Amino acid sequence: MGTEWVDRARDAAKELAVDALQRDRANKEPFVEAELLRRHRLPALLVPTGYGGAGESWATALAVVRELATVDGSIAQLLGYHYVNQANLWLAGTPEVAERLGRPSAQWQWLWGDAVNPIEPELTLTPDGDGYRLDGTKSFSTGASVGDVTVASGTVTTTGEPLLVAVPRDAEGIDFGGDWDNLGQRLSASGSVTFTGTPVDGKWTIGSLAPTKVTPRSSLITPAIQAVFGHFYLGIAEGALAAAAEYTRTRSRPWTLGGLASATEEPYVLAAYGAYAARLDAVGAQAERVAARLAEADACGADLTWDERGELAVAVARLKVVATDAALDVTSGIYEVTGARATANRYGFDRFWRNVRTHTLHDPVAYKRREVGAHYLTGAYPEFTLYT
Amino acid sequence: MGTEWVDRARDAAKELAVDALQRDRANKEPFVEAELLRRHRLPALLVPTGYGGAGESWATALAVVRELATVDGSIAQLLGYHYVNQANLWLAGTPEVAERLGRPSAQWQWLWGDAVNPIEPELTLTPDGDGYRLDGTKSFSTGASVGDVTVASGTVTTTGEPLLVAVPRDAEGIDFGGDWDNLGQRLSASGSVTFTGTPVDGKWTIGSLAPTKVTPRSSLITPAIQAVFGHFYLGIAEGALAAAAEYTRTRSRPWTLGGLASATEEPYVLAAYGAYAARLDAVGAQAERVAARLAEADACGADLTWDERGELAVAVARLKVVATDAALDVTSGIYEVTGARATANRYGFDRFWRNVRTHTLHDPVAYKRREVGAHYLTGAYPEFTLYT
Amino acid sequence: MGTEWVDRARDAAKELAVDALQRDRANKEPFVEAELLRRHRLPALLVPTGYGGAGESWATALAVVRELATVDGSIAQLLGYHYVNQANLWLAGTPEVAERLGRPSAQWQWLWGDAVNPIEPELTLTPDGDGYRLDGTKSFSTGASVGDVTVASGTVTTTGEPLLVAVPRDAEGIDFGGDWDNLGQRLSASGSVTFTGTPVDGKWTIGSLAPTKVTPRSSLITPAIQAVFGHFYLGIAEGALAAAAEYTRTRSRPWTLGGLASATEEPYVLAAYGAYAARLDAVGAQAERVAARLAEADACGADLTWDERGELAVAVARLKVVATDAALDVTSGIYEVTGARATANRYGFDRFWRNVRTHTLHDPVAYKRREVGAHYLTGAYPEFTLYT
Amino acid sequence: MGTEWVDRARDAAKELAVDALQRDRANKEPFVEAELLRRHRLPALLVPTGYGGAGESWATALAVVRELATVDGSIAQLLGYHYVNQANLWLAGTPEVAERLGRPSAQWQWLWGDAVNPIEPELTLTPDGDGYRLDGTKSFSTGASVGDVTVASGTVTTTGEPLLVAVPRDAEGIDFGGDWDNLGQRLSASGSVTFTGTPVDGKWTIGSLAPTKVTPRSSLITPAIQAVFGHFYLGIAEGALAAAAEYTRTRSRPWTLGGLASATEEPYVLAAYGAYAARLDAVGAQAERVAARLAEADACGADLTWDERGELAVAVARLKVVATDAALDVTSGIYEVTGARATANRYGFDRFWRNVRTHTLHDPVAYKRREVGAHYLTGAYPEFTLYT
Repeated sequence: MGTEWVDRARDAAKELAVDALQRDRANKEPFVEAELLRRHRLPALLVPTGYGGAGESWATALAVVRELATVDGSIAQLLGYHYVNQANLWLAGTPEVAERLGRPSAQWQWLWGDAVNPIEPELTLTPDGDGYRLDGTKSFSTGASVGDVTVASGTVTTTGEPLLVAVPRDAEGIDFGGDWDNLGQRLSASGSVTFTGTPVDGKWTIGSLAPTKVTPRSSLITPAIQAVFGHFYLGIAEGALAAAAEYTRTRSRPWTLGGLASATEEPYVLAAYGAYAARLDAVGAQAERVAARLAEADACGADLTWDERGELAVAVARLKVVATDAALDVTSGIYEVTGARATANRYGFDRFWRNVRTHTLHDPVAYKRREVGAHYLTGAYPEFTLYT
Repeated sequence: MGTEWVDRARDAAKELAVDALQRDRANKEPFVEAELLRRHRLPALLVPTGYGGAGESWATALAVVRELATVDGSIAQLLGYHYVNQANLWLAGTPEVAERLGRPSAQWQWLWGDAVNPIEPELTLTPDGDGYRLDGTKSFSTGASVGDVTVASGTVTTTGEPLLVAVPRDAEGIDFGGDWDNLGQRLSASGSVTFTGTPVDGKWTIGSLAPTKVTPRSSLITPAIQAVFGHFYLGIAEGALAAAAEYTRTRSRPWTLGGLASATEEPYVLAAYGAYAARLDAVGAQAERVAARLAEADACGADLTWDERGELAVAVARLKVVATDAALDVTSGIYEVTGARATANRYGFDRFWRNVRTHTLHDPVAYKRREVGAHYLTGAYPEFTLYT
Repeated sequence: MGTEWVDRARDAAKELAVDALQRDRANKEPFVEAELLRRHRLPALLVPTGYGGAGESWATALAVVRELATVDGSIAQLLGYHYVNQANLWLAGTPEVAERLGRPSAQWQWLWGDAVNPIEPELTLTPDGDGYRLDGTKSFSTGASVGDVTVASGTVTTTGEPLLVAVPRDAEGIDFGGDWDNLGQRLSASGSVTFTGTPVDGKWTIGSLAPTKVTPRSSLITPAIQAVFGHFYLGIAEGALAAAAEYTRTRSRPWTLGGLASATEEPYVLAAYGAYAARLDAVGAQAERVAARLAEADACGADLTWDERGELAVAVARLKVVATDAALDVTSGIYEVTGARATANRYGFDRFWRNVRTHTLHDPVAYKRREVGAHYLTGAYPEFTLYT
Repeated sequence: MGTEWVDRARDAAKELAVDALQRDRANKEPFVEAELLRRHRLPALLVPTGYGGAGESWATALAVVRELATVDGSIAQLLGYHYVNQANLWLAGTPEVAERLGRPSAQWQWLWGDAVNPIEPELTLTPDGDGYRLDGTKSFSTGASVGDVTVASGTVTTTGEPLLVAVPRDAEGIDFGGDWDNLGQRLSASGSVTFTGTPVDGKWTIGSLAPTKVTPRSSLITPAIQAVFGHFYLGIAEGALAAAAEYTRTRSRPWTLGGLASATEEPYVLAAYGAYAARLDAVGAQAERVAARLAEADACGADLTWDERGELAVAVARLKVVATDAALDVTSGIYEVTGARATANRYGFDRFWRNVRTHTLHDPVAYKRREVGAHYLTGAYPEFTLYT
């Protein structure tokens, strides 16, 4: 794993930390943050060296996402989604399109957003010359409004084929809703996007989502995005616990009736930190193992089998389940170890919980438990969908 | 129990519900809400009929607090604290002072705030003529800034005696910090208050907190306030679950991969509601039993023994422990049964968790567990403090 | 509620406590224990005074079950099941059969077992003269082998009607399997019973389980038996915690590295006792409320409506859910507060967990959660079955 | 890691599985099992090749312990303790004693027991010629009664120095209490041992436990034994879940009111398996990381620093905390996914819970949480004791 990239992510995280709370409150489109990511050259980390990228592995990419999440869950999401959106190029695309869009992606540190929310009506792709016209609306289009390019999924009106296409942000007929005003992950640029006759260059078609055309390799995008989730949940929880500890060390008071000299001697505070730290340590070990497996699956290239893809998907689902529960408990529980005065809004320690609480609803964790359980009991792998 | 008072509280709650979220966001001093409480004649509910009050029991008062809390935890806190502050008159005061201040309290529906935070340096009471001059600052003085009268605890500079005195809001030399900007319970008027040479009429001295003068009856204020806590934590959680259910019924979608027609058929959603409803039902039964016990203890008057007071205090502590855990879990958990779109800030479902998360830190629940456990194991009662 | 009956149950419990562990190990049919119950006159507690019984309410009966369960979960089950089996007489039977069997039930303190396990093939009732011949096998026939009479559910071969009939233990053609060798509730006489041409007097027909004949009142047997469950789970947990506390006070050592003089000063031990005691207190309050509601529903007689029955059933289900979770946690958790040496088999503290673990599987608690949740969300009542 | 050794352990586990339940019930001294371990050549796995052992790492040893624990927690404990007892030779001993006792250890696959329970009065070592006479009693001397050699800790009567010495099982004046009759880990040979003037060869002195003589390397025995604990807790839980799954697949019935065709389709059963499997997966990842760290620390030899030792000890404590909680929950929870009939004693599924419940009390997990928390908050490492 490229530890220098994690160091670079740590540098970016330090910059993001300076005004993380103020930025969360302001709820602006994260243009500045996107530029910060580009400046640290994080967006092209995964792009194969053949296209001019850093050619790092998913293990590195996920470690970077986790690191950023310790200070800013939104920007970690933005970057994590970008990695998956962009990876469609070489996971699902032809060598030509991968070259065509991968090269500028690397050169200009393009950030990739998406417009593929699978539970909403599909966008339409109306054939037009060598390309298409794209129409329709997608909510929750993380990164589209501040990214350089957006991956959109649309159905070709004449053939019914579901395609993934790339659209530059400044294309004609794109309107960003600016309507992401939610509890958490506020800076993840997750508002809606509306396309009205937006021209799509036929050469910017990445690939097909038709069941007959999906391969184990192209279907890696789901385990990849779900692994991103697990990593930023973990990172947020780690950041929350670290912030709490800093507060406990420097500001918390021992309980007035407890007779102790310092909050750092309180038996219940110590045991609570211990329980949280131990639990996050386990999730961390699991996350690293999952990241390594994703990197291995990616390295298999076209040789990846459906069974290998299935094993990976279940491993990722296990992480998602565990990281969700741990992150919710830790981010709400930190208040018990900081105390009443830590609820002052100038500290804003609730942003960790808000971030985790919001994104862990992406798809129901109860169904992930079911998926993991079904595999444990019967060996079944979940079929490929954009959630499994 | 006066069920007509609970109906009256429900009417008040309906009014508060209309703009609960907007008021939470605006974070203004709750003058309008205080007036609403007066209009529904809730403040004088507990005042003995001898002084012109409604003469209702603590069971009624706590039921009213719980009812208000389902829609507005802050205002439930404001009223609940008021009941305890005001009750000092007849629990700790002489018949004369109880008459002197109880009568206008009933007549004008006075709301009582407090300035008694026991973990900060005491206010000073400097003898001055027949009364005192009051100096000093107290944080977290719930209700002081919008109440009609404030109970302040101060130490007499010449004798060292800790006294409880009453001070009208418009007294000279009172300054309200307006500095309550915290995560939750935002409308509870819990900012600081500073007294600068504020004149205190000697006839407005309520009683002494000197250990030798505290009686089982006067010490009821601690179980009473802790019972208030348990009741509004419960009420907030009940309100959260009801709000979630309304959302699930009307807005939630079944999971796209689950194959069901409606969110109200989802097995995991149903079981989660069941777990929460069952748990709150148990806390509700416990709360009602505790409320009845507090009413009984109050009805004992001067005959109340330290052992009876001790039993009550432990019963209240048990409620606090259970209500804290349940309310935290339910208010965070409601998102799992409403789904991702329920995180939109226009719903503001996080206010329930914010309210519970904030106030449950008032005093460490771990120490309450310890207190309950010590009694269970050894029969020991907690000594009287303003926390136990 | 008849508190003298609870005192009587406490006396019986003291006797049962003497050799509870040895009896659990020996796993004999509980003839001696059945006789003990009769000697304390507990079996006829619920029988209406008109038939010569004590005419106590369900609130008393359930309090007695809970009390016995603190020392012997099996015998609490035996008695609790008996109450429900016997109550079929006046809930479902005609006045004639209630008189005919209720009177000797009261006079001789009959214990009633059952042979009605609804998930197994039905017994058959072949018409024979004025009565029937009964054939078939039922597992898990609590109380049949040591009771005086057994309630059996069978299908009339000629009409298909499902009937409840009563059969004396010494009837011809009854064979008790003696095959109850399970983890817990070992003395509950829950083995199988096989009927081979067993004659059934037509006058001992209690009533019909045909959907068209079931009434709100006759269907009370399900809430009643489920309320029995909740009460003995609670009682077992209370007994476990009390036994643990006695051990902690008298035998546990403080942790060698903790620096404290006594186990009763250990902060984690105290907090754990507090958490458990607080939680059981809540379940206790809920149980008492449920018991009162069952007594009220019973007192309604034939006026009970399906909606009232539905409300009661849901209230009972809430108790079941909460009592199950609490009892499992407490009975496993007591070891943490007693310590390593408390695992010696001469103490046998595992019997509490074994008892709860075994019986809480009677019907899946997950489906009870679902039932409670469905009612909370939609107002739906569970339809009458022998589980709901 | 030596995967062939894990295969070998799996072979041993298969043999142990055949009659695991019957052996648990019989509660005999595990002579046959000890011989089985020797036959599979597992005892000498860790012995350095220089002494004729297999020279495998702790990562392998711990994987072997985990594997055995899936079928027999007791024998996993026996072997795991042995590894630590034996490792004193090269961690704490001189090259001479390591050679002297390591060589026959390897050649004859000696199993090492211990007599070092630190919370009991020390054994005494009275100088006698070139050696000592050993006197006193130690409870919980795992492996002493069936091992070939026992490591005993005793205090030299003349100097007060605490020494570790080795004593062969057939030495004069050794009496094994045969008094281990506890809830779980019944075949771990954990009864007491009494020494009465037992001769100790001076050349069998392994090393000193005097604070001034303990080194980072010699103090590795505590992280090593605690890592053994975490691994066998995990292995037991894994075995429990696998046994439950086999039962669910082959014997469980769908719930009669649920309308599903098979228990393996039950939504709550699937989600429960998923939750357990996901959690054990996290613990597994953590365990493997801890095992690798212990192996690294061991590989440092004399260069190991106290800080490195401290980091390791905290990492091991984190595993202990997490593995304890997970193993308790899983081993009790398996009944919810198997159902009521799985409580029949012929299945004996309770042995998993009994094993975990018993051994997790070895030292209080609450203090481990505290230890982890103290390190997280302040960076402090626990001082060396036989528990930390």
